[in-house]
Amino acid sequence: MDLETVSENRAFGGTQGVYRHKSAATGTDMTFAVYLPPAAEAGPVPVLWYLSGLTCTHENAMNKAAAQGPASEAGIALIFPDTSPRGEGVADDAAFDLGQGAGFYVNATEAPWAPHYRMWDYVVDELLALVGDHFPLDLTAQGITGHSMGGHGALTLAMTLPERFRSVSAFAPIANPVASDWGRKQFAAYLGPDEAKWASHDASLLMAERGFPGEVLIDQGGEDQFLDKLMPEALAHAMMKRRQPGMMRMQPGYDHSYFFVSSFMPDHVDWHAERLWT
Amino acid sequence: MDLETVSENRAFGGTQGVYRHKSAATGTDMTFAVYLPPAAEAGPVPVLWYLSGLTCTHENAMNKAAAQGPASEAGIALIFPDTSPRGEGVADDAAFDLGQGAGFYVNATEAPWAPHYRMWDYVVDELLALVGDHFPLDLTAQGITGHSMGGHGALTLAMTLPERFRSVSAFAPIANPVASDWGRKQFAAYLGPDEAKWASHDASLLMAERGFPGEVLIDQGGEDQFLDKLMPEALAHAMMKRRQPGMMRMQPGYDHSYFFVSSFMPDHVDWHAERLWT
Repeated sequence: MDLETVSENRAFGGTQGVYRHKSAATGTDMTFAVYLPPAAEAGPVPVLWYLSGLTCTHENAMNKAAAQGPASEAGIALIFPDTSPRGEGVADDAAFDLGQGAGFYVNATEAPWAPHYRMWDYVVDELLALVGDHFPLDLTAQGITGHSMGGHGALTLAMTLPERFRSVSAFAPIANPVASDWGRKQFAAYLGPDEAKWASHDASLLMAERGFPGEVLIDQGGEDQFLDKLMPEALAHAMMKRRQPGMMRMQPGYDHSYFFVSSFMPDHVDWHAERLWT
Repeated sequence: MDLETVSENRAFGGTQGVYRHKSAATGTDMTFAVYLPPAAEAGPVPVLWYLSGLTCTHENAMNKAAAQGPASEAGIALIFPDTSPRGEGVADDAAFDLGQGAGFYVNATEAPWAPHYRMWDYVVDELLALVGDHFPLDLTAQGITGHSMGGHGALTLAMTLPERFRSVSAFAPIANPVASDWGRKQFAAYLGPDEAKWASHDASLLMAERGFPGEVLIDQGGEDQFLDKLMPEALAHAMMKRRQPGMMRMQPGYDHSYFFVSSFMPDHVDWHAERLWT
């Protein structure tokens, strides 16, 4: 598969790159970012996927999450996918939380979204194969994290594909989308009115039903302006009811911004590195 | 108030003492343990209360929780009260979870318990005054923790008396006693059938209603044989719903024993010391 290099910058002794390719999954050009730590010069390194939130592209976390420093030290690569297909001819909505920038990491089955909105397949299959072909990555050592809608994505992917992901964490995830304004509207649009089809994309329901084989780390800001939509209490209940190894932290004073994400990013990178470098 | 010294042993450069006194609150002799760190030789030190679980006396945690080492380093004192009144003429029950060794940190109002089972008043008022008189303690810097029934006690005391306790944590607390076999039976016996009177002794209900002004730390073992009675999921839900600062950790593989408590005791002592030495 062809890959166009958009940019490459030295960062913390490694390389922060941005790349573009024609995606078969979405039928559009897609852009993503990869950070390779210095350790990648010596051989394949573990991979940490970072899924972004509403309105984000591959750029937000790359620029603002301050993950490259810890990843350089830990010797793990970072991959920052986009959050939706984009461009002319791709369905969109005037709201910021539906359509472009708001793919919710599902494969849409409903009009007008179905032709391009296949972010689950894009991340799970196509982008994985692509980065595996082009970068020195140890695909037997993958972890996943994300913020808000991306935290939802990280948790649902990890619990659905436990053989793929050895570690998972999330920052302020949309934790119970089937019960939230961030979820019901989008699942109805992308997946249709049958709520039974939504359940496999809800972190709290997946936690209740199957959990994750390893430990799970969740951070949530106590002054997050979207707490009523994120519903961490549903995930906390499901985690403890299931006896899911791991921890959930309520970080007082932090809001939903990247100031929150970057503050705890070193903890998360170290958490994943501990579980991936084994 | 008179205090009889039962024993004193050097421990981690400080002193582990056991003392006995006549309690006005319970109308019995009561025994408790105090650990004073080396720092107490130079002046008053902060205090960490440790409330024990079912069947325990002042001895269990003193002997098995491995708290003295961390407390010595952190420069904080430890107080280990007994879990109930004891002796002839004190009501008891054949079951291990009612009566002697099972005071539940409440003031009983019902026969035959009311005359002696006043563990709330004993810990909150009488023992506080006693240790304040006899030991070099900074009573403006008190924290509280405990295990199982004692975790229940620590959480309910801290949320009820936030002006008293600057920090709180718990190991595998009985988290929702009004809904548990560890709670309903005892509250019915000690407090009577009116469940409205039980609510002020339920950590999950107190968390939903008022929470704690500081951060809360909860550790729970994932292989705890009493999880169905402890109900950490109720407390987790209430903590996250309220946006309570702090964290709850599910520690995989650990059971309900003091091997669990001692494994995480250093974290808890450090947690309290950070908040008490300020």
